[in-house]
Amino acid sequence: MKFRRSERLIDMTHYLLERPRQLIPLTFFSERYQAAKSSISEDLSILKETLEHRGIGTLMTVPGAAGGVKYFPSIKKEDAEQHVKELCERIADPERLLPGGYLYMTDILGDPQMMRKVGKLLGSAFHDKEIDVVMTVATKGIPIAYATANYLNVPVVIVRRDSKVTEGSTVSINYVSGSSKRIQTMVLSKRSLREHSNVLIVDDFMKAGGTVNGMKSLLEEFNASVAGIGVLVESEKVEEERLVDDYVSLVRLTDVDVKEKRISVTEGNYFSKPISFL
Amino acid sequence: MKFRRSERLIDMTHYLLERPRQLIPLTFFSERYQAAKSSISEDLSILKETLEHRGIGTLMTVPGAAGGVKYFPSIKKEDAEQHVKELCERIADPERLLPGGYLYMTDILGDPQMMRKVGKLLGSAFHDKEIDVVMTVATKGIPIAYATANYLNVPVVIVRRDSKVTEGSTVSINYVSGSSKRIQTMVLSKRSLREHSNVLIVDDFMKAGGTVNGMKSLLEEFNASVAGIGVLVESEKVEEERLVDDYVSLVRLTDVDVKEKRISVTEGNYFSKPISFL
Repeated sequence: MKFRRSERLIDMTHYLLERPRQLIPLTFFSERYQAAKSSISEDLSILKETLEHRGIGTLMTVPGAAGGVKYFPSIKKEDAEQHVKELCERIADPERLLPGGYLYMTDILGDPQMMRKVGKLLGSAFHDKEIDVVMTVATKGIPIAYATANYLNVPVVIVRRDSKVTEGSTVSINYVSGSSKRIQTMVLSKRSLREHSNVLIVDDFMKAGGTVNGMKSLLEEFNASVAGIGVLVESEKVEEERLVDDYVSLVRLTDVDVKEKRISVTEGNYFSKPISFL
Repeated sequence: MKFRRSERLIDMTHYLLERPRQLIPLTFFSERYQAAKSSISEDLSILKETLEHRGIGTLMTVPGAAGGVKYFPSIKKEDAEQHVKELCERIADPERLLPGGYLYMTDILGDPQMMRKVGKLLGSAFHDKEIDVVMTVATKGIPIAYATANYLNVPVVIVRRDSKVTEGSTVSINYVSGSSKRIQTMVLSKRSLREHSNVLIVDDFMKAGGTVNGMKSLLEEFNASVAGIGVLVESEKVEEERLVDDYVSLVRLTDVDVKEKRISVTEGNYFSKPISFL
């Protein structure tokens, strides 16, 4: 019996962690473990307490015949601060400096452990919003989009710069890039996004916000709404007006001094947002 | 005491699931839970038994002073068969058919739950190989690369079709696309891949294998080795010689009949490979 509870707890943990925000009927678990519903309820209250205590997330029980349990990943404020600090330190590394004052970010974006943390941070900033899909633009936004989508358990939609035959019919828009003032194109496959979807837009880097703004215009073509905007890094140095105001950023790039080889960053606006931490 | 073990098991499950193939010293756990090493060892044997029984993975204990425990995700053959069957059914849906006989795959690639299954399948096919990094080419291979890299707990490296200023200095090669016979370019940021790395190449679709072959040539420039090749879909209909022979495929596209609107698929060569299932 003791073993049975251990087994149930381990398997339930795995099962729920893989399915955030999804309603699992209690009958599913009681059949899976051939256990009484009362034992399952007891398991779930142990699980809830531990997940909260350890800063992993929480469980919500939905009562009634159509009820069950949902796992909501979450994060403690101190862990979030730690993750943002780690990001700041990694981004401030002068080795990232490229000619022209650009930053090399590919190593951070290619690190699944770091991306998981970014997904946790951005996901928890929007976890009380109705979100049907996470959208980004190819290529660098993609890992951030998948990490956030994993956290929220919703699909990913990728906007491209060019149209490809494997996308089927597409909707394309032209937009003006905020910093370079050039006209650019964005393309989204028609069938990749349902009308009236609630869309979380994410990207790796935001300067004036032209790209994010382009995605917003594209969403209008689909009668879809922006549920939120999240970026890994925002640049403080914007010569023109910022085109996007309501967004969440994890890191703020305050200065790049190519001559002195110095990258100055601070935390973004993340902690000034009304995020409910564990 | 009973509660303490429950809490330890739940938290350990989460901790290990997030860190596949990483050595965790037993002292880490005994400090984290203020528990004797003997209790931790007992926990780990319960955990191992459950993870194996439930088809999640296994634990390997490394003895000695520098020892600890490693979690290896794995999969049961019946679950793998179920996942491949699901993929085949989804891909055979005639709604995917695009003009020219192309298949729309973006919904599958944008589905994080499906990608997690693909990552499990490809990851387990190569889990006994020494792999330092998973490589793919932008854009469609990216979700497959991240899913597989999450499973193997290694970084991702993304080859591009064009060079971008944010990549720093790059190495580029020209290659001949297998099916269209056109000369194409592939670019990889110099600092994104260490010399002598062991690289797992993944992609969404393989016809003659020109793209995969291009990645192989690119690896030569980095003195890196191919640790394996995995693709989601391979096409059986190849007019010319296949350029790649040693690969793992999950689904094989046997015929596309545009007129009759029929997509014929079978499972790929996955189950003919020496994969050790749980």
